[in-house]
Amino acid sequence: MEAHTFLIQLVLILFSARLLGEVAAYFKAPSVIGEIIAGILIGPSVLGLVELSLPIDLLAQIGIILLLFEVGIETDIAKLKSAGVKASIVAIGGVVLPFILGFGLSYFWFNFNLLTSLFIGCTLTATSIGITLRVLHDLQKQNSPQAQIILGAAVLDDIVGIILLALLYEFSMSGSVDFWNAAKVLIFIVLFFLIAPLAVKCVSMTIMKWEERSNIPGLLPTIIVSLILLFAWIAYQLGAPELLGGFAAGLALSRQFVFPFKNILKQAPEFSDRVEEQIKPIVHLFTPIFFIAIGLSLNLNTIDWQSSFIWAITGLLFVFAVIGKLASGFLLKGETFASKFIIGTAMIPRGEVGLIFANIALSAGVFNDDLYAAVILVILLTTFFAPFALRYIYNSPYAQFEECL
Amino acid sequence: MEAHTFLIQLVLILFSARLLGEVAAYFKAPSVIGEIIAGILIGPSVLGLVELSLPIDLLAQIGIILLLFEVGIETDIAKLKSAGVKASIVAIGGVVLPFILGFGLSYFWFNFNLLTSLFIGCTLTATSIGITLRVLHDLQKQNSPQAQIILGAAVLDDIVGIILLALLYEFSMSGSVDFWNAAKVLIFIVLFFLIAPLAVKCVSMTIMKWEERSNIPGLLPTIIVSLILLFAWIAYQLGAPELLGGFAAGLALSRQFVFPFKNILKQAPEFSDRVEEQIKPIVHLFTPIFFIAIGLSLNLNTIDWQSSFIWAITGLLFVFAVIGKLASGFLLKGETFASKFIIGTAMIPRGEVGLIFANIALSAGVFNDDLYAAVILVILLTTFFAPFALRYIYNSPYAQFEECL
Repeated sequence: MEAHTFLIQLVLILFSARLLGEVAAYFKAPSVIGEIIAGILIGPSVLGLVELSLPIDLLAQIGIILLLFEVGIETDIAKLKSAGVKASIVAIGGVVLPFILGFGLSYFWFNFNLLTSLFIGCTLTATSIGITLRVLHDLQKQNSPQAQIILGAAVLDDIVGIILLALLYEFSMSGSVDFWNAAKVLIFIVLFFLIAPLAVKCVSMTIMKWEERSNIPGLLPTIIVSLILLFAWIAYQLGAPELLGGFAAGLALSRQFVFPFKNILKQAPEFSDRVEEQIKPIVHLFTPIFFIAIGLSLNLNTIDWQSSFIWAITGLLFVFAVIGKLASGFLLKGETFASKFIIGTAMIPRGEVGLIFANIALSAGVFNDDLYAAVILVILLTTFFAPFALRYIYNSPYAQFEECL
Repeated sequence: MEAHTFLIQLVLILFSARLLGEVAAYFKAPSVIGEIIAGILIGPSVLGLVELSLPIDLLAQIGIILLLFEVGIETDIAKLKSAGVKASIVAIGGVVLPFILGFGLSYFWFNFNLLTSLFIGCTLTATSIGITLRVLHDLQKQNSPQAQIILGAAVLDDIVGIILLALLYEFSMSGSVDFWNAAKVLIFIVLFFLIAPLAVKCVSMTIMKWEERSNIPGLLPTIIVSLILLFAWIAYQLGAPELLGGFAAGLALSRQFVFPFKNILKQAPEFSDRVEEQIKPIVHLFTPIFFIAIGLSLNLNTIDWQSSFIWAITGLLFVFAVIGKLASGFLLKGETFASKFIIGTAMIPRGEVGLIFANIALSAGVFNDDLYAAVILVILLTTFFAPFALRYIYNSPYAQFEECL
């Protein structure tokens, strides 16, 4: 690929992602949807201007690692602890129920093999906290008691989703489901998450000292990005997907994540802020490339839209994805019916983590093109559906009435 | 190339560039030298850890485009106008004399062909303003009358260098020296530089309006980078190197570059600042990759160090590179001997633009590996030599004495 071709492809990617992201946001839909649609438009499905070449795929991988770094750095562990029992119930229910429904449907009804069925089940587990947050914010309900439960649960099931991802990644690499391997990976991950914050804190103290003495500008962007990519590489060496390393680095650099080393590691509180400020433009530059790449990796022309299979699996998975999360709201005791309904509905949108599952499954050959398209479609549908449903419920006279009680 | 290999290579690139850049700065040498040496160390010459693969080369190309964007945005046209006659004399002398010496040596003594000789001559033309600035700053002489002349001249010959580059690029693409083509490219460039600021100002006003209404964060990094890369692509389509587009975009977005449209285009002055603030971390991330790539593209093992050719050409070119710039200081009238000497010496370091010439000549097959290594070596030597010489002159009793007069 020549440099000028690469440049114009990058221009198309960044510009179309931005434009359709804004259009999506204008229609109150999440911008991620706009970015994926932009990828479908400029990719092989419609215009055929850009294909998912190696350099673009590598930039997309960096994009998702950096996105998970940002998710990590913004994860508020303190809030998570205070979210308490109710959030945990919703989170666990919201992971287990959609997983069982999705896995059961795939394995027993569609007769997919074990690994494929596990991937399908897991794709339905993680709520997209970004979309939920935006809707609650638009409705000015971000400080309601329900919102606290929803946010706590969404953060928790994101973390559970990422751990599940590490396990399935190991299975997909080895090609078989082996619980001994799974245990090994789990132990590595636990060790990694215990050691990572200690390592990162030490490194970040070194960086702070270095920064004071440095004569040349630009220390933070280069060194922090190196650190994130190094963690991604270590995660891969431990048998987990690269993005887990990005998440660990973010969590470790976040302002809140000092326990259990609170007394050993005193960190200048403005350091996290400075890191975020310098890294954010880089994250904003790279992450749309990942979502565009999802769109590019779909070729809607090769899918047999006449077959009933694609409609059946998309439709059934979507219904199960909705029911699984909705039911998790009803596991709560002591909440009103409207409150349970709101909490369940807010958990419906799947997003980044689900897309990552699908992406890894496609690269590993666990999903074929049809199944991949179906799963992406289900994720997009949940993301479209939930905000409208949530607005509808909040504005219904029944909810208004109950809230006043 | 697999994602994890790419990640660890990027880590090595970013980290080693930073580390050796800092070491160079510690020894009062320019950080660019440290970065090139880092590339030589991790590349095929020494450790062989990283090779210049396509994805890394593409990132390096983006790096140099973004660097020239920054050079453009920081170019102070107003200062350039006030630098006046003396700076222009030094600049023109400092371009013409080293060019004639370098070209003459190559064409008549070493019997290189016309295109190769032109490239060698041009490599010696552009002063690296960054290195000169740093040294003057260290000596606290950045506001002296000499410094004003030096800075004006350095900015001017950077611009002349970039225009020469556009011409030679056209020759190297077509494989022959054709003055009709050269005239065509020159006309395109003039038109481009007249239209670009108008276009960019219009676009930037649209972006400002867009930014006010946007609901999703990260507009500036994605849109400004798209704009820069789009300009780079347009420059290529006009027959100029891509980086010229980056330079034009930077110049057009700079705070000063409103003439001749001063009255039509009123720009919120803080917009340039905001663009710079958001783009800087991205520039800092990408540019070291270009200088590392210079180091990676040198394979010192394949060069025949026994041959007298490499020593002869390196030595002679270095001497001519020094004499050419030194003489430009002596073209001035009404300055003291010490002042002429200081101005001439400060113009000696070659840097980014010279490296770009060499890089393009290598890719186009105009330089072979030996000649490429020799030219890079000459650039490095001038960059090492000048700061020490300048310090020595400034601290010599003779200069102190004259300055007091």
